[in-house]
Amino acid sequence: MTDFTRTKSLFAIPDGVIYLDGNSLGPLPVAAAERVGRMLQEEWGKHLIKGWNVAGWMTQPRHLGDRIGRLIGAADGTVVVGDTLSIKVYQALASALELNPSRRVILSDTGNFPSDLYIASGLLQSLGRGYELKVVAPEEVEAAIDETIAVLMLTEVDYRTGRLHDMRALTRKAHAAGALTIWDLAHSAGALPVELESAKADFAVGCTYKYLNAGPGAPAFIYVAPVHADTARPALSGWMGHQAPFAFDLDYRAGPGIERMRVGTPPIIAMAALDAALDVWDGVSMADVRHASIALSDLFIREVEARCPELTLASPRDGTRRGSQVSFRHPEGYAIMQALIARDVIGDFRAPDMMRFGFTPLYIDEAEVRAAVDIIADVVAHRRWDGPEYRKKALVT
Amino acid sequence: MTDFTRTKSLFAIPDGVIYLDGNSLGPLPVAAAERVGRMLQEEWGKHLIKGWNVAGWMTQPRHLGDRIGRLIGAADGTVVVGDTLSIKVYQALASALELNPSRRVILSDTGNFPSDLYIASGLLQSLGRGYELKVVAPEEVEAAIDETIAVLMLTEVDYRTGRLHDMRALTRKAHAAGALTIWDLAHSAGALPVELESAKADFAVGCTYKYLNAGPGAPAFIYVAPVHADTARPALSGWMGHQAPFAFDLDYRAGPGIERMRVGTPPIIAMAALDAALDVWDGVSMADVRHASIALSDLFIREVEARCPELTLASPRDGTRRGSQVSFRHPEGYAIMQALIARDVIGDFRAPDMMRFGFTPLYIDEAEVRAAVDIIADVVAHRRWDGPEYRKKALVT
Repeated sequence: MTDFTRTKSLFAIPDGVIYLDGNSLGPLPVAAAERVGRMLQEEWGKHLIKGWNVAGWMTQPRHLGDRIGRLIGAADGTVVVGDTLSIKVYQALASALELNPSRRVILSDTGNFPSDLYIASGLLQSLGRGYELKVVAPEEVEAAIDETIAVLMLTEVDYRTGRLHDMRALTRKAHAAGALTIWDLAHSAGALPVELESAKADFAVGCTYKYLNAGPGAPAFIYVAPVHADTARPALSGWMGHQAPFAFDLDYRAGPGIERMRVGTPPIIAMAALDAALDVWDGVSMADVRHASIALSDLFIREVEARCPELTLASPRDGTRRGSQVSFRHPEGYAIMQALIARDVIGDFRAPDMMRFGFTPLYIDEAEVRAAVDIIADVVAHRRWDGPEYRKKALVT
Repeated sequence: MTDFTRTKSLFAIPDGVIYLDGNSLGPLPVAAAERVGRMLQEEWGKHLIKGWNVAGWMTQPRHLGDRIGRLIGAADGTVVVGDTLSIKVYQALASALELNPSRRVILSDTGNFPSDLYIASGLLQSLGRGYELKVVAPEEVEAAIDETIAVLMLTEVDYRTGRLHDMRALTRKAHAAGALTIWDLAHSAGALPVELESAKADFAVGCTYKYLNAGPGAPAFIYVAPVHADTARPALSGWMGHQAPFAFDLDYRAGPGIERMRVGTPPIIAMAALDAALDVWDGVSMADVRHASIALSDLFIREVEARCPELTLASPRDGTRRGSQVSFRHPEGYAIMQALIARDVIGDFRAPDMMRFGFTPLYIDEAEVRAAVDIIADVVAHRRWDGPEYRKKALVT
């Protein structure tokens, strides 16, 4: 297995913590703090307004887009960074629906992240005109693709179970039926090889605070296939997507290609953290990451099942059908997870009964997986979770 | 005049620089760099995912909203922070139009920031159904308010000239005609007293990177009047605006009041900078700021007009009719501004011929205004701007 000692040293994880929640929030890359400090003091502090030109702030959304593009099989100039994932879903869906104007059905599944569904239903309510959001079970998606579907909108990796959709096959089937596709890569980018261009995805969106480690609420990204990039109308038509933002024309003219998916003033401080976080990937092969991630999660499943019969696997057993996380169910999953966190094994919980554990080889190794299982086995076997302190509900789970 | 020595010491402005561009990007508050560093190392670095609970990240958009609310005459619980100004304009307009469903006209003016108009036209194109954006000259707004208008959408302070709309009077007239109002406070918040609640504004939006000094691309804010807060439908219905985001329901149910205007995961790093930047305002009276800002800009106008007959005032001469900036026209305004910047008098330029100078008493004093005018007079009188190095166009002006 590839040696990830180098990348592990690039993260500032507190001693003794086994961090299995990079699928929710990646840990701090050491360089991110330094880079943000420099941005604040040297760029903003010294250059002030001139930073927009001399520090390259204005072109950062494209520069970072290209860097992310290389991790998800997208050519330079097809990805741009900004806003939040929910906003990028809105943009992608609004554009995709207009590109398929004779149809009225958006197909998604119950494994999609709820915010994507909320955004879709909010958009459809604004549009009226008979638009409909059809939500089926993940395993029924393929059969539900027919010639009524305008847009197939899915999250590639299920946020609860880690179940992985077959992007290539579903996109092919969608196209054959005359539908466009939007892929949410929240749990894919940085977790496994994604080949947007070769899979012929029409749109893709994702966040950068999970496997890309850019910090809480870090900016999102959007990909638009070159075939649509100059025709998609950005419903969120902000000045940064204008052909000439600094001409201050009263009328909107969409900028070239992916530029039009920019909206407002880019978040420069957050982008400095993202830029540094992406440095971690220099020289890293996504195939190696994937190989190691499957090995680590297979090991985890094997060990947990051997030692904790109380827990039920909720993720696909076949590593090639999973993202980079493993979930186990237990009726007291919430309390168990709190007890684990108290012992520095950090995963998270999704209602009603799902414990999630993320495996990111960049900073998690086999010894830590084994150590984590020791603690899980101890907590579960001895019901160490069975105290009021572990049942107290937090705002964020 | 109030002594602003204390607040001046809170900013990291390079020695020798006279910074008259706080109307475009406020300077770095010393505490912001420290606060962001702490957020990165102590909160993200040490707490990791637990930061959402223990470091108060999740409630930060409301906390910061309340702090901004106090600067713009809005009660606690009526303002929330997030996204960009363009996105917040979209939210406000989409909600306002639905609250006035029998009408189809949005009234705005040519003094509005172009992005607001772009966003409006993008939204209207999505909506169809005969919606219309009517854009008149600023001085014609009042007469154009009639019973066809659904929403009056204006920027209070003109970004080019600094001309100030009468929010109270226009809102009253709009309400009398049955229209709702949206006020963009980009050049108002932190620049002058704003009384949203007492003026009965329906919606307001603004950015925090100008007079609130939170850094390039810092997050925006939105205000919704309490009377609308529980009925406005958030067209951008993201999970953070859901009644129970962590229930992960498949259906959207809007959260209570202003909470529903949240969309995606909040930008925590940027919010740390904003939090520190707002500390500068503790104990500062907006009336004092306004008084000093008018005194400084009146002085600037008087001195520039006396010494630079080549420049033509583009701002209202009456300080009570201006925001916190003064603009002068000159056919070679671009080159003049570049020459000034080369001599550390930093303002900016808006096509075709407008030089903008912002006066923010928090860190600009009378001696600097006089020193700036000395340099402007020298540059203009001796045509020191007349060189190719000052005509080179930058990406951002």
